[in-house]
Amino acid sequence: MTFPLTRPKNPNAFDDAAIDAIYHTIHSRRDIREFAPGSLPDSLLDRLYAAAHAAPSVGFMQPWRLIHVSDAALRNEMITLVEAERQATAAVLPSRMTEFLKLKVEGMKTCAEVLVVALMDGCENHIFGKRTLPEMALASAACAIQNMWLAARAEGIGLGWVSFFEPAALARLFAMPPGAKPIAILCIGPVAEFSPQPTLEALGWGQRLPIESVVFENRWPADTQPTPTAY
Amino acid sequence: MTFPLTRPKNPNAFDDAAIDAIYHTIHSRRDIREFAPGSLPDSLLDRLYAAAHAAPSVGFMQPWRLIHVSDAALRNEMITLVEAERQATAAVLPSRMTEFLKLKVEGMKTCAEVLVVALMDGCENHIFGKRTLPEMALASAACAIQNMWLAARAEGIGLGWVSFFEPAALARLFAMPPGAKPIAILCIGPVAEFSPQPTLEALGWGQRLPIESVVFENRWPADTQPTPTAY
Repeated sequence: MTFPLTRPKNPNAFDDAAIDAIYHTIHSRRDIREFAPGSLPDSLLDRLYAAAHAAPSVGFMQPWRLIHVSDAALRNEMITLVEAERQATAAVLPSRMTEFLKLKVEGMKTCAEVLVVALMDGCENHIFGKRTLPEMALASAACAIQNMWLAARAEGIGLGWVSFFEPAALARLFAMPPGAKPIAILCIGPVAEFSPQPTLEALGWGQRLPIESVVFENRWPADTQPTPTAY
Repeated sequence: MTFPLTRPKNPNAFDDAAIDAIYHTIHSRRDIREFAPGSLPDSLLDRLYAAAHAAPSVGFMQPWRLIHVSDAALRNEMITLVEAERQATAAVLPSRMTEFLKLKVEGMKTCAEVLVVALMDGCENHIFGKRTLPEMALASAACAIQNMWLAARAEGIGLGWVSFFEPAALARLFAMPPGAKPIAILCIGPVAEFSPQPTLEALGWGQRLPIESVVFENRWPADTQPTPTAY
């Protein structure tokens, strides 16, 4: 009788190259603000829409709505809204205002394509899995965006999630019905490169937390420090 | 002079097999409630933690906290909390209560491993990218969970996101500090198979929306119907 040195292969697992591809995608995905000229690969947007729509959703509610913005005047109005919020944010960050204003927080003028992602109206009618956590609708839509982000990264295309806007103003711009709420402006397009570090880490805005400070065993440790203020 | 039939390869794109692997993972990921006996592959949890920690976060705030639950008594207390919320949900779903109670909404008794994911305390001190959208902290943590979900799928391991619990009660169970909030119980473990459809679709709880009803051009269409009530 012989003993195998390795456990039997899990028939549900993908092959090693595919597993490596998933991890490589996850670890090299970046939040992009600097875009290069050029257009998207053929049908990429359709693949991204399908990837978003394959996301998990609480109670299978599929709360995500994607608006493709091809109208240049609309894009310009969005740029104005985002710049207003950038200045409003700077005004409440007195201790780091100068540092903040040097950062590029969006790439809306140069990216190939712009999408708006919103939560549908009527989310409150869905109760399954969200009676005590109504924010699970947003969580589902965030998973849809992460699917698009990873798919775009694998295809060599950058995506940036811009959350600098007044949601009510953006909702008006797109004639959203009462109850619908925009949660993201996505800038999508070719990039020169994917940097090895997140931009905000490379520029010193924040530091990567050690993994030990975010993974606990059986209880929250008693000695964690509160987060510093004014970020 | 010749004209290439295809555009030059994007140097930032992964090879075709890797791109296919990403889409295959995205489209075959399932929210798992039925687990098979067995343990996780060596070091899988560490790879999942690293995948979560590689997620995007607004202002690089890294709001996710993961608690690994190895204590069997704690797991039992969680099962009690989840069952209480399942009954509380059934009570407010009168039109579909019987149908709902037939569904299995979690696999906590049989999954190999259980994690709790929470938002850190002090999220309100972070302003970058969330002055008008404080829920971006939750969005970031949801992206971290989606990273783990996709990585687990590629490795042939099931993951289910359980949101049937009273967050304050779960926070007390894990001695979370004021301001921290649990958003997920994750059940992780081997599965017999990944079904071709989401469970709630296969069982008729909900229907997959046609892609045309979630992707719009330049504005929200005027003729969308409100969602039916009592889900």
